[in-house]
Amino acid sequence: MAGVSIKTVSRVINKEGTVKPDTLQRVEEAIKALKYTPNKAARDLASKGASVLGYVYDNPNAYYIIDMQKGILDVCRKNNFELLIHPCDASSKNIAKELVDMVDTAQLAGLILSPPLSEMPEVLSELDQNQISYVRILSGDGLFPSPLPYVLVNDFKAAYDITEHLIGQGHKNIAFIAGEEIHKSTIERLNGYKAALEKAGIAIDESLIIKGTYSFETGVKSSETLLAMSPHPTAVFACNDEIAAGTLFGARMKGVDVPQELAIAGFENSPFSRQTFPPLTTASQPTNEIAQHAAASLIQYLRAKKAKAAHDNLNHTFIPELVVRASTEKQ
Amino acid sequence: MAGVSIKTVSRVINKEGTVKPDTLQRVEEAIKALKYTPNKAARDLASKGASVLGYVYDNPNAYYIIDMQKGILDVCRKNNFELLIHPCDASSKNIAKELVDMVDTAQLAGLILSPPLSEMPEVLSELDQNQISYVRILSGDGLFPSPLPYVLVNDFKAAYDITEHLIGQGHKNIAFIAGEEIHKSTIERLNGYKAALEKAGIAIDESLIIKGTYSFETGVKSSETLLAMSPHPTAVFACNDEIAAGTLFGARMKGVDVPQELAIAGFENSPFSRQTFPPLTTASQPTNEIAQHAAASLIQYLRAKKAKAAHDNLNHTFIPELVVRASTEKQ
Repeated sequence: MAGVSIKTVSRVINKEGTVKPDTLQRVEEAIKALKYTPNKAARDLASKGASVLGYVYDNPNAYYIIDMQKGILDVCRKNNFELLIHPCDASSKNIAKELVDMVDTAQLAGLILSPPLSEMPEVLSELDQNQISYVRILSGDGLFPSPLPYVLVNDFKAAYDITEHLIGQGHKNIAFIAGEEIHKSTIERLNGYKAALEKAGIAIDESLIIKGTYSFETGVKSSETLLAMSPHPTAVFACNDEIAAGTLFGARMKGVDVPQELAIAGFENSPFSRQTFPPLTTASQPTNEIAQHAAASLIQYLRAKKAKAAHDNLNHTFIPELVVRASTEKQ
Repeated sequence: MAGVSIKTVSRVINKEGTVKPDTLQRVEEAIKALKYTPNKAARDLASKGASVLGYVYDNPNAYYIIDMQKGILDVCRKNNFELLIHPCDASSKNIAKELVDMVDTAQLAGLILSPPLSEMPEVLSELDQNQISYVRILSGDGLFPSPLPYVLVNDFKAAYDITEHLIGQGHKNIAFIAGEEIHKSTIERLNGYKAALEKAGIAIDESLIIKGTYSFETGVKSSETLLAMSPHPTAVFACNDEIAAGTLFGARMKGVDVPQELAIAGFENSPFSRQTFPPLTTASQPTNEIAQHAAASLIQYLRAKKAKAAHDNLNHTFIPELVVRASTEKQ
C-alpha cells in the first residue's frame, strides 16, 4: 500500500530512524489506514522472547499456589515476562484441548505445569503435538519421555527421613494420612513411609493408612478415626501440613496432648507448620525456589529454541529437608 | 501491497468467503510477506470483548489473594476471559507507569484493582489518562471521582459490630492491633472500633492501639506488648485473622488462657479463623463474592463501552458480618 519494501516497513515499526521523511510518512499513513497493530507478543518472541507465560495448576493449597506464583513472578519480572494463571480441573475430559486453546487465545510463550497436570501423559502428548513449550514440576519416577525441561521433587526420600525420625523418637505404631492419589507425591510419600518402616523391621499395618485429600478437614476426620483405635497410634505422618494442622486440631478437641500422647509430623514447611501450637515437624519443600527454577528453565529453553541453539541441562532435582519442631519432640 | 481496499483485507482475515480467488491469493501473499499477524486480542475486543483481564495487587495475605483470584477466575471462565496476575509494590514511584506498560505489553482489556492500589489517586488518574478500563475494590469513603465501576467494603460498620460484641461480653479494656496504614481498611476498622467505644462511654486509650502489619508476626509481637501491661487488656480486636492467630499463639506461649483471660477477635473469616484452637470470632468478608462482582462489573462495563451503550449501575457495597466463635465467648 505504501509502495515500499517489507524491510522499510520493519524499519518504521522498529523506529530505526534510517527512513527518508516522505517514505516514513507514507508508511505511517498506510499503517494507520490498515489499522495495523504490530503484534507485540509475536514481535517480542521474535526479538527477545515472548511476553507472557502461563501457570497451570489444579491444587487447593493456597500457600503452595501463592509460593509458586511468587517464585515464577520473580523470574518473570527479571526477564520482562508477564504471568497468566489458569487453574483447572485435571479430571476434566477436555483438559488437554482447553490448555491448547488457552495458549492460542492468550498468545502464550510457554506453560509452567505443576502436579497433577505435569504428571499426565495425555496432557503432555497433546501439548507436544501442538508444539507448545512447557516446563514440568513433578514428583517421583515414570517421567513422560519429552525433551522439555522439568523440576523433580524427591518426595520418597523426604518421607523416608520423616518416618525414620519418628521411629528414632521411639514410635512403632505410626499412622499415615494420605492426600489425593491423583498426585504422585501421595504415592511417593506413602512409599517412603513404608520403606522406612520396613528398614526398621516394623510390619506395615494397612489399618493405619488413611485415605484423604490434602486438606485440614481430612486431618480433623482422620484424627477421630485414629484416636478411636485401642491402642491408638502414638505418631502420625500427615501427607501435608494442612492435614497435620487438622490432626492437631482434632487431637485438641479430644483433649489428647501433642506430642506426649500423639506426635504429629506434616510435609511442606508451609506457614501452617510454624503457626500451630505446638509448631509442626515437617519436610521443607522449597516451593518458591522450585518455581524459580522452573520459570528460569522454561525461559532459557524458549531462548535457545528461538536462537536454534543448544542449551545446557535445564533439569533440577530437589529433596525436601527434615525440619524437627515441638510436635514430635520427646519430652 | 496487494492493491486492495482495507475492507477486502478484513474480509480475507475474517474468512468471509466473499473475495475473488485471485484477490484472495494476492492478499494472502502480502500478509505472508509482511509477516502480518492479526492482533487476536484487539480483534477479540472488537468482536466479542477482549480475552485477558489483569488483576493487580499488593497484599501479603495468601488467602485473600487466592480467594480474589478464584472469584475473578469463575467469572472469567463463564465469559471466556483469561486472567493475568500482576503483584506489585504500591509504594514504588513508577507504579502507575508500570501498570500502563503492562496493559500495553499484555494487551489487556481491563484491570481489577484491589487495595491499596485501588485507593491511590495518582494511579487511578494515570490509568484514566491512558484510557485504561478498570474496576476498583476499596474500603471507606473519599472515593476518587471516576465514572468507572467499584465495589465498596464497609469496614467501619463491621469493625463497629465486632467492638460492640466485645463490649457486650463485659470487656472495657479492649486493645486494637492495626495493619498497614496504606490500606484504608486499617483506618476504617480503627474508626469503627473507636466509634463503638465512644458509643458505650468507654474512653479511648491510645496505649491500647498497636501499630503493625497484616501478619501473624505482628500478632505474636503485639501480644507480648499487651500482656506485659498491668493490668493487661481483657480483649483484643486484631485487624485481620492472621494478626489474631498470631496473638493467640503469643498468648499460648505465655500460658494465658483464651478466652478466659484474653478474648481475641479477628477480621476476614479466613481459614485461619476456623483452624486455630479455639476458633476465632471474626467478620465474614465475602472475598470470593466481592471478586466475582468486581470482575462481572468490569466485563459489563467493557461490553457497554464497546457497544457505546449505557450500562446499569455497576457499583456494589458489602458489609462484612459478625461471626461469633469460641475465642470471645463468655465462659
